Amino acid sequence: MSAVWEQNVRRVVPYVAGEQPTDKNIIKLNTNENPYGPSPKVQELADHMDSDIFKKYPDQTAGDLVRALAKYHGFKPEEIFVGVGSDDVLAMCFMTFFNSDKEILFPNITYSFYPVWAEMLRIKYRTVPLDEQFNIRPEDYKAPNGGIIFPNPNAPTAILASREVVEDIIASNRDSIVIVDEAYIDFAEEGSSVIDLTRKYDNLIVVRTYSKSRSMAGLRIGYAIANEKLIKYINDVKYSYNSYTMNTPSIILGTASVEDDEYFKEKIEAIKKTREWFTEELKKLGFKVLPSSANFVFASPKTKTAAEVFEAAKQAGIYVRYFKAPLTKDFLRITIGLDEEMKKVVDFLKGFC
Amino acid sequence: MSAVWEQNVRRVVPYVAGEQPTDKNIIKLNTNENPYGPSPKVQELADHMDSDIFKKYPDQTAGDLVRALAKYHGFKPEEIFVGVGSDDVLAMCFMTFFNSDKEILFPNITYSFYPVWAEMLRIKYRTVPLDEQFNIRPEDYKAPNGGIIFPNPNAPTAILASREVVEDIIASNRDSIVIVDEAYIDFAEEGSSVIDLTRKYDNLIVVRTYSKSRSMAGLRIGYAIANEKLIKYINDVKYSYNSYTMNTPSIILGTASVEDDEYFKEKIEAIKKTREWFTEELKKLGFKVLPSSANFVFASPKTKTAAEVFEAAKQAGIYVRYFKAPLTKDFLRITIGLDEEMKKVVDFLKGFC
Repeated sequence: MSAVWEQNVRRVVPYVAGEQPTDKNIIKLNTNENPYGPSPKVQELADHMDSDIFKKYPDQTAGDLVRALAKYHGFKPEEIFVGVGSDDVLAMCFMTFFNSDKEILFPNITYSFYPVWAEMLRIKYRTVPLDEQFNIRPEDYKAPNGGIIFPNPNAPTAILASREVVEDIIASNRDSIVIVDEAYIDFAEEGSSVIDLTRKYDNLIVVRTYSKSRSMAGLRIGYAIANEKLIKYINDVKYSYNSYTMNTPSIILGTASVEDDEYFKEKIEAIKKTREWFTEELKKLGFKVLPSSANFVFASPKTKTAAEVFEAAKQAGIYVRYFKAPLTKDFLRITIGLDEEMKKVVDFLKGFC
Repeated sequence: MSAVWEQNVRRVVPYVAGEQPTDKNIIKLNTNENPYGPSPKVQELADHMDSDIFKKYPDQTAGDLVRALAKYHGFKPEEIFVGVGSDDVLAMCFMTFFNSDKEILFPNITYSFYPVWAEMLRIKYRTVPLDEQFNIRPEDYKAPNGGIIFPNPNAPTAILASREVVEDIIASNRDSIVIVDEAYIDFAEEGSSVIDLTRKYDNLIVVRTYSKSRSMAGLRIGYAIANEKLIKYINDVKYSYNSYTMNTPSIILGTASVEDDEYFKEKIEAIKKTREWFTEELKKLGFKVLPSSANFVFASPKTKTAAEVFEAAKQAGIYVRYFKAPLTKDFLRITIGLDEEMKKVVDFLKGFC
């Protein structure tokens, strides 16, 4: 017999993130981390952390970090919201803006946390099929809705939608909030971001993360860019949830990262170069590889099933990601690591496939 | 004319935390921080932080921290949930357990975040008056309800409810989840905590924080202790909200703090000693001081209004907290700082009151 209080428990099926093995010999290409580590300026500060400052609450506005990001992107601090990774930022946005009776829309192949947030927050949703080449079709988003969200580049496909496609969706949905999740945009060609469109459209929110291009997944920093009014609404919900979400190390080290743009750009170029080389190697092995604008590739093997390659790679100490849903079951999502790591992956695949 | 999307914004009135002035000359006694700073073991690790580890996501289970806390309190890791400060833990608990059609109950004078969470999450609530000596009366909590929460010691009164009172409330509400928010319990006499009762009552959750006794408000660490089933339910909601809430520095430094119990106990004793001295000084000045089991006192001046003392103290560079609601407007909440800080407060009050 179960207790009466059990009737009032919010029962949810949580998101399952990629494994985080602790064995350092494992080539870890399953959660789209950036292998180069943060800027040396971050290390300088990490070497001189005075624990005495931890006795005080952090600045609840994370002002230094917000101002650094605002300056970096050419916005006002009032146009930036920071959170504990882009997951926290996105969850706050779902809570703040997706309160309509109408369904929210997102692609049928996309970041698998979107349906989890919707279920948890009891938001109705409908998934919208991608086309046969895994592209988003703007016309499919011209239906009544309670909000729209999609990543660009999309995950796990790595495919970029053009600015025209993205703007078409935003412009056709002025009655809804449109969230463009740009977690991987720094790996796309320059000029792909739509952060500038937050000035043109009052219904647009763009979300970014430190976990990929900034190589700081361990610090948990994400942010949103939008007009002041939208940012104020998100902040009101945040301050109704947890006054102090960003801890002191994340504020200090996150600020330092933004201030070293040279290192940042250099490492992104390195990853893009490795991605192009790795893509060619996969193609030589007969893989179908979707055109990637991210720090990972979504690739389908020819002679073995994706599930077989996933398992065999794991046995060989190479962790990649496999999503066994019907639409993704033929593909593997492989993070772009260091050159030497990717060479080992190619060697393994040459032997196995 | 406002946009259509505005109709679907969750509009909330956020919690307002105490000010965080950056001027180091200010005597900051307004957010119940612990002036002694974290353990030297925390400093040792803070001195050798390798930023390269930040490129990886943190352990999403915060396993080291959870195991350290479990060992410290004599529980299993499965009986511990950690979050971004106790505010994050409490918000998760509200989301997870307070989903009844019945009202949740909490005292009419209490932590002012409770009604904010309830409003934000659209949970019905009813406040229960304290008695004339600011005590919780268990019989008032023997009414149908959708859950119960109260801090012990209570805030901002600093008054401790006895174990008997707390157990009476838990035992009389086996159909509801009862959350005892023990943010300040380390400053109460030993044996006041009810963490052991989580073994006796399946409806009890006890919440703790690093922000007060552990002097680590800047790291944002809080935790809950309850039976495995309850902790599993909270974790399911957490993993439906943000997979990785605890960042790498908070896991590493939070673990180190628990491992230095000698320093921890020594500083708590120092604060209790200062509290007794300061209480006597306030009484000599004619203040009414409620009996404190926390690292702050709730005190009412005799010759001036609390609002007048609050403002004058602020002008003099001494920040305390003032809640102008009808039931609290005659009192000031003053954090116990260092001896020399409290002496300056007494000197100021001698001159002003």
